[in-house]
Amino acid sequence: MSPDIEVLIQKISRLPGLGPRSARRIAIHLIQHNHDILEPMLNSMKKVHDNVKVCPICGNIDAFEEVCSICSDPKRRDDVICVVESVADLWAIERTACFRGKYHVLKGLLSSINERGPEVLLLEKLSVRCRENQVTEIINALSATVEGQTTDYYIRNFFKDKNIKVSALAHGIPMGGELDYLDDGTLFTAFSARK
Amino acid sequence: MSPDIEVLIQKISRLPGLGPRSARRIAIHLIQHNHDILEPMLNSMKKVHDNVKVCPICGNIDAFEEVCSICSDPKRRDDVICVVESVADLWAIERTACFRGKYHVLKGLLSSINERGPEVLLLEKLSVRCRENQVTEIINALSATVEGQTTDYYIRNFFKDKNIKVSALAHGIPMGGELDYLDDGTLFTAFSARK
Repeated sequence: MSPDIEVLIQKISRLPGLGPRSARRIAIHLIQHNHDILEPMLNSMKKVHDNVKVCPICGNIDAFEEVCSICSDPKRRDDVICVVESVADLWAIERTACFRGKYHVLKGLLSSINERGPEVLLLEKLSVRCRENQVTEIINALSATVEGQTTDYYIRNFFKDKNIKVSALAHGIPMGGELDYLDDGTLFTAFSARK
Repeated sequence: MSPDIEVLIQKISRLPGLGPRSARRIAIHLIQHNHDILEPMLNSMKKVHDNVKVCPICGNIDAFEEVCSICSDPKRRDDVICVVESVADLWAIERTACFRGKYHVLKGLLSSINERGPEVLLLEKLSVRCRENQVTEIINALSATVEGQTTDYYIRNFFKDKNIKVSALAHGIPMGGELDYLDDGTLFTAFSARK
């Protein structure tokens, strides 16, 4: 096998969710469709490489000059900031179109196992933004896992005396979910948080 | 979201084995590691795009001038041709290093459901190669599925009167396989083909 192909397969196999077998399959597919798939893919990646950056304010990724389209949108509220774990979560919330404030993307959740300390939360940056924009509410839109809840707790504690309301997404029965199939933890939470 | 990113995600999601969710994850990973992952990946894909082609003789993919490294290898036997469904299968056989002949890569197996007729087998091309190189044996290294066996049968029939031996890979218990966990079909085949 040509070393060029081997290198490409190795690189593809290191992408999240892929392994050597799926990487081989993808590489063969790309090469066998040199003109109609590999070439457009190359152009598209080149464009993204040249134009797309991480927003210095919120951490979103977008094509922009100084700040991303969300941070520079004058129609969005400046005084509510939604904290998310990753850009994928930000996009998921944007797809629901239920939130019209700004975002703060963490560099991950607090995790003792993965050795991620408070520095990944970029709280100093968030704190400065809160002061500059008179932020009244921070919404923690984090996963309902131990790491997510630890992070939520840490952020609440950090902003405790700063006159900013910190809320978190509601936990409960997912829409369309049948009681019979729910895990005990979710059912328990839904019961305790009944309204 | 920037249209550049949307286009890239769409393109990635059409690769074999991927969907919109895994494509988003991969795109975010690429963009967040612009310099250390996206850039080397671009260079690697560019190299493959410029150098790697499909071999006009066997159908292997490789970097070459006229024919691939297997077809041009003088140490490999010219008189045995191994028929495989795809380049991935060819590479799998090459990894075992058990075969020192040449290959013939099909454009797929015969399949009435997927409307693939005998033209995908490129038998005219194979036939010419057999005449030119005095081929004595064709080895059908095809999947043990209905489609693989139909294709095997068709190729055997095609070369019936041409004084060329057509063989197929042995079916039986996979090495390391425990009898108790084998499916009935494999066990039956292994019994009938005992030696």
